[in-house]
Amino acid sequence: MIPNSFIQKITDIVGESHVEHSESARMAYSYDATPNFQSKPDLVVSPKNTEEISQIVKACGEHQVPIVPRGSGTNLAAGTTPTQGGVVLLFNRLDEILEIDEENLTITVQPGVITKTICDTVEEKGLFYPPDPSSMKISTIGGNINENSGGLRGLKYGVTKDYILALEVVLPNGEIIRTGGKLAKDVAGYDLTKLLVGSEGTLGIITEATLKLIPKPEAKQTLLAIYKSIDQASQTVSRIIANKMTPATLEFMDQKTIKAVEEFSHLGLPTDAEAVLLIEQDGPPLVVERDIERIAALCKQEGAIDVQTAQSETEADRLREGRRAALSAIARLSPTTILEDATVPRSEIAPMVQEINRIAEKHNVNIATFGHAGDGNLHPTCMTDARNQDEMERVEKAFEEIFAYAIHFGGTITGEHGVGEMKSPYLAWKVGNAGLDVMKNIKAAFDPLNIMNPGKMFAKETRKRIIL
Amino acid sequence: MIPNSFIQKITDIVGESHVEHSESARMAYSYDATPNFQSKPDLVVSPKNTEEISQIVKACGEHQVPIVPRGSGTNLAAGTTPTQGGVVLLFNRLDEILEIDEENLTITVQPGVITKTICDTVEEKGLFYPPDPSSMKISTIGGNINENSGGLRGLKYGVTKDYILALEVVLPNGEIIRTGGKLAKDVAGYDLTKLLVGSEGTLGIITEATLKLIPKPEAKQTLLAIYKSIDQASQTVSRIIANKMTPATLEFMDQKTIKAVEEFSHLGLPTDAEAVLLIEQDGPPLVVERDIERIAALCKQEGAIDVQTAQSETEADRLREGRRAALSAIARLSPTTILEDATVPRSEIAPMVQEINRIAEKHNVNIATFGHAGDGNLHPTCMTDARNQDEMERVEKAFEEIFAYAIHFGGTITGEHGVGEMKSPYLAWKVGNAGLDVMKNIKAAFDPLNIMNPGKMFAKETRKRIIL
Repeated sequence: MIPNSFIQKITDIVGESHVEHSESARMAYSYDATPNFQSKPDLVVSPKNTEEISQIVKACGEHQVPIVPRGSGTNLAAGTTPTQGGVVLLFNRLDEILEIDEENLTITVQPGVITKTICDTVEEKGLFYPPDPSSMKISTIGGNINENSGGLRGLKYGVTKDYILALEVVLPNGEIIRTGGKLAKDVAGYDLTKLLVGSEGTLGIITEATLKLIPKPEAKQTLLAIYKSIDQASQTVSRIIANKMTPATLEFMDQKTIKAVEEFSHLGLPTDAEAVLLIEQDGPPLVVERDIERIAALCKQEGAIDVQTAQSETEADRLREGRRAALSAIARLSPTTILEDATVPRSEIAPMVQEINRIAEKHNVNIATFGHAGDGNLHPTCMTDARNQDEMERVEKAFEEIFAYAIHFGGTITGEHGVGEMKSPYLAWKVGNAGLDVMKNIKAAFDPLNIMNPGKMFAKETRKRIIL
Repeated sequence: MIPNSFIQKITDIVGESHVEHSESARMAYSYDATPNFQSKPDLVVSPKNTEEISQIVKACGEHQVPIVPRGSGTNLAAGTTPTQGGVVLLFNRLDEILEIDEENLTITVQPGVITKTICDTVEEKGLFYPPDPSSMKISTIGGNINENSGGLRGLKYGVTKDYILALEVVLPNGEIIRTGGKLAKDVAGYDLTKLLVGSEGTLGIITEATLKLIPKPEAKQTLLAIYKSIDQASQTVSRIIANKMTPATLEFMDQKTIKAVEEFSHLGLPTDAEAVLLIEQDGPPLVVERDIERIAALCKQEGAIDVQTAQSETEADRLREGRRAALSAIARLSPTTILEDATVPRSEIAPMVQEINRIAEKHNVNIATFGHAGDGNLHPTCMTDARNQDEMERVEKAFEEIFAYAIHFGGTITGEHGVGEMKSPYLAWKVGNAGLDVMKNIKAAFDPLNIMNPGKMFAKETRKRIIL
């Protein structure tokens, strides 16, 4: 238990009404969107500004109390669960858009701003913030930055990291630094901005960010292609790239996902189809039209049994509906849904999906796969029941094998969700022991007392291992 | 002096013919492209592979001998000078293109490959590697990665860092790690790839890199606009961005540069013009044509006295000639040329150029300015004589003020050249003392013995300071 003197110190910093330690408050912040990683914090604190955060961090350092920064808690890798207790730090009072700079094409925000609010705000001015994680309607930009969130537009536009130009950060020693600037080019020292983005709250607390914007694409078109064979879908993806086109969206659903979606949404998808591709292109109208025509032709050449091109925004919405509903459609089929993000080079999608299906069968677990075919970021999603201990063990074994195969194919254990506590046993598989040592040394260089989101990213000694 | 036992150890690793310690070899590698930072190494070593490099690094660690990795030595910030002696490590025997992967749009190379060789090789396949530092005909990709090199296409396409997907690196302890992959999305742990790119050889030795490629733009057009007033040129840049266009090239020359270029190349540029903009757009032909027409109209609206649009590749070459000749034209006017790269947000280019002119006059030094207007990366270039001690002191004072103003305008001390030894006294101005401490801690975490390119990036205690 943390001492009363610490609680008093924090209360003095933020004021009584911004510190909670009731049972209900502690319960409310004991979990994030990841099943099976619940643990109550000691305090839930809502600071108003950077100076207060600096003081809180200093107090936590003095008392060796863990701090877990938390946006909306949509994290899927147990990255924002207070598994060692301590302080959950909320950003609900740091939710302002500070500046939109139309000359330098930047927006400067506090970490508690909702991602979609940023997108909507800049689109009104003809500008565009591309990263679009599925949780964007509720996730905060601070959470996105901590996790380096991806999304559907990754292939063409990149991920959160590609759009973070500058940060204000409270370091684990309480010092406040500013990194980067409204600059496309800056090589003054090590790139702390890009090191901090995706560091999962383990190196510091982000209190302000300047984001790069681009002009909003003038037009967009949407196409849906249905395949009997997953190889044909995969071949289509390869041919699109080989033909020097980079679609804005290139999404994939496998047969199990198609079945779940069709039962849920009744969109008329043939449930014997092995794969569906949802493809969108944006840009100048003439280019969009040309690319969509070419892509439709390629889909047909590769054997798609149906290719639908939207003629209106309403039709486009209908075509997107299936992919958009995928997670909900799968989630309603079982008490617990485990959504993973093993990622492979684009060329390895078909063999990877085949391995996932083989592994699911071997361990007798139910896995549907959808995801971002353009950038190889797959979402094998397991329908299970967290109360069934025997099944959960098989699920873990299956995902272990999936991670191992992702690495075997030149991929990674996590494309966009982060390592968190959940995937920390597998990090060494991707980065090697020497790489892991480097990362631990970086962590210790920033945070020698290990107060910033401890237990995340780096596993305890008791790692799980499998032999393939 | 390094002991003979160390020389013998290195010779045993790479073979007699790949170790040089003659006076002439030591002299040849005693400097890079930066004036006034000459210092002889003890040994010049040319390893053949990663394993040899690992062994060399381990030997250097045991004997506490500095290692300076060096590509072609085109560095402009004394980043590749062996200012503390030791081993200069060459990559001339690691110069192979290992793979071009047309499915995943990547190229994998050894560090000694010439940058332009990469560009030419992939363009033959209809692909494109955008970073184009001015030295690309002789610089190596390893040097570009160490320095995070920029170039003319930064505004639209970004810099070297944006195209490095994966690295093989020998750490200062001799361990070999692999970072990243052929992946657009990878959040497995801290982003070592992006930390290593631009780390100026202070954190490890890059022995292999996988680069991201994009489809080659189908068409390109070139335009030159001449202005009586620098404000009109700057206003044109703002209007192009405000009109949601992102040119591939948006280059600027001031009056002194125009005069030098005209005396050198006789292109018919009016020497009373205060500014010239060279603007290029690339992409699908219809978009290029539309953008160039719109940009030409904007140039005229903002008061350009002459706007020339190339009707052929020969004409485009003629328009590019002035900007391309800028450095040579300036360099022939004095014994010593000091080319800097203070960078500001795009909106601050006009006030920054005015400050540069005021500062040059105040210190009675001769500075011409050209550079990348689109991304605010200016090249104030001083014509001087390194043998004139009095003038060199005034030059240093002038650049100190220029760096300070760049930071005042929200910019940085270096946009694309790196900190090296030359700009290390100024790094704290940009990143603050707390930021500098973080960087030093990262350096110590990687390289506790400080053998990797020591003395670079972090200044000795005796820093220069000025009061503005």
